[in-house]
Amino acid sequence: MVNDLIFPDILLYLLDMVGIIACAIAGTLLAQHKGFDIAGCILVSMVNAIGGGTLRDMALDRHPLFWMTDLNYVIVITVTSLILQIFFHLYHKIDNALKLFDAIGLAAFSVIGFKVALTQGMSPLIAIMMGVWTAIIGGMLRDIICNEIPLVLQREIYITASIAGSVTYLCLQYVGVSAGINEFIMLFVIFAVRMLALRFDWHLPSIRLVA
Amino acid sequence: MVNDLIFPDILLYLLDMVGIIACAIAGTLLAQHKGFDIAGCILVSMVNAIGGGTLRDMALDRHPLFWMTDLNYVIVITVTSLILQIFFHLYHKIDNALKLFDAIGLAAFSVIGFKVALTQGMSPLIAIMMGVWTAIIGGMLRDIICNEIPLVLQREIYITASIAGSVTYLCLQYVGVSAGINEFIMLFVIFAVRMLALRFDWHLPSIRLVA
Amino acid sequence: MVNDLIFPDILLYLLDMVGIIACAIAGTLLAQHKGFDIAGCILVSMVNAIGGGTLRDMALDRHPLFWMTDLNYVIVITVTSLILQIFFHLYHKIDNALKLFDAIGLAAFSVIGFKVALTQGMSPLIAIMMGVWTAIIGGMLRDIICNEIPLVLQREIYITASIAGSVTYLCLQYVGVSAGINEFIMLFVIFAVRMLALRFDWHLPSIRLVA
Repeated sequence: MVNDLIFPDILLYLLDMVGIIACAIAGTLLAQHKGFDIAGCILVSMVNAIGGGTLRDMALDRHPLFWMTDLNYVIVITVTSLILQIFFHLYHKIDNALKLFDAIGLAAFSVIGFKVALTQGMSPLIAIMMGVWTAIIGGMLRDIICNEIPLVLQREIYITASIAGSVTYLCLQYVGVSAGINEFIMLFVIFAVRMLALRFDWHLPSIRLVA
Repeated sequence: MVNDLIFPDILLYLLDMVGIIACAIAGTLLAQHKGFDIAGCILVSMVNAIGGGTLRDMALDRHPLFWMTDLNYVIVITVTSLILQIFFHLYHKIDNALKLFDAIGLAAFSVIGFKVALTQGMSPLIAIMMGVWTAIIGGMLRDIICNEIPLVLQREIYITASIAGSVTYLCLQYVGVSAGINEFIMLFVIFAVRMLALRFDWHLPSIRLVA
Repeated sequence: MVNDLIFPDILLYLLDMVGIIACAIAGTLLAQHKGFDIAGCILVSMVNAIGGGTLRDMALDRHPLFWMTDLNYVIVITVTSLILQIFFHLYHKIDNALKLFDAIGLAAFSVIGFKVALTQGMSPLIAIMMGVWTAIIGGMLRDIICNEIPLVLQREIYITASIAGSVTYLCLQYVGVSAGINEFIMLFVIFAVRMLALRFDWHLPSIRLVA
């Protein structure tokens, strides 16, 4: 996914890995809760971490898929899942860290998906969708495999944070902000919206003007 | 999906949009019932409306995907879903209209999927499958995301209507009917089978010759 | 999938078909249990039998998909599912045969997925994943559609058997065993591990070093 690493691509790659680790942890925890075995837990953590990017690349016809050329993804996920399965009792101490990692992942995945779509020549509307897609499809597939109603579709600010970041990027691009700085701002906006939503328990309502 | 609009392609495009609207409505209704937020409802309505065509295009290696070049799809779905969410109380008045729209969508989606596969040089058997695929996968994915057993696989005439239309097309093509007229007939056959099935409560049995 | 049939490709093709039949039977049985109609049962049996290979080919950008050029797959699945639906009462006599077929399918699907990935120039790690993917995704999709928690992710030796076969292949390749013989050995290892696991009720534990 990252071919020629120039700053801020290095930063983005590192934040991407933080998100991958957060997803691997979240996937393993749910799979353990469902009583899956070692291999099942690793598989669910992979789906959670790279499922969204995989479907995005397949939809945009980008081959080979990003995790086929950069084996770091598969290795990081497997190691994370195994460590967590062995030292599961440590989990209660990492709950808050997980929320932080998860928000970093949401921001990094959105920026990557958004950038990739623009690079492929897609319109801004499709790029916004691909940012959301990359960020949430993995978690959705995890919940579907584990026979749960997807968490990200319920009353949580995930999709909204991703869209807010993309729209900010497009506005700032319009007024002439350079791409490098703009990506930083987009990352920060998504991360901030998500953390504020967690802190103040924001969520999107169901709308209904007339009862 | 529709590049050079000549009649009857314009009609097919309009019927396609009717089907898209029906799917967006059905997706939003189920998502609301499950308590998803605004963004979640829009996402489920998108999956319902364009999920089948997306997987068909990915399977047939047609890139870019149809909704990436024609933004009408994404816009129509989003607007439909938002209007429905705001004026939800009107739903009870549109129940019968929804069934009609749904039947139109089944017919239009089947014809489009069938045509696309033939255009890509697939055999008739694969074309029949792609017609079914385009027509029902979206609703199946909607039900999977919402943790329901897919409605289209149960005792309802959906798949059968789509196959009946495709087989009619192939038979009439064999006796020399031109493609334009043949598409009309295929559309009508699928629509008629579906409406008659609803009217007279037809459904496919489970078969078992020997108890 | 099989273009120039030379031995042992013919054997592999036959074993593949045995696996396809086993998957079609398993899919039809679960779909019947869920009360799906004739068409729904056929669709679930197709997802079970060719779902894994379809996603593998889409991920590796191999087009057209294997079942689009070789219609035997679709025909064998449909006929198998129909025969089973008509003579359902015979099922109790085929339970043990099904487990045998299923193990043959696991072995054949793993070898095919593993070979295909290597042929596409993928690294060994990705090839191992593609072997697992081809062998288990179909059954996972079947369970997801039928709203069940995927069996293959639970305490059953499926993924492990597939990985054991792939690792054996890679080790023997390293010491110079020719590809033809090596494939036989890989097939046998997977089949043997699966049958032994069934016979002696082996399963992978959940690991946790510290309580």
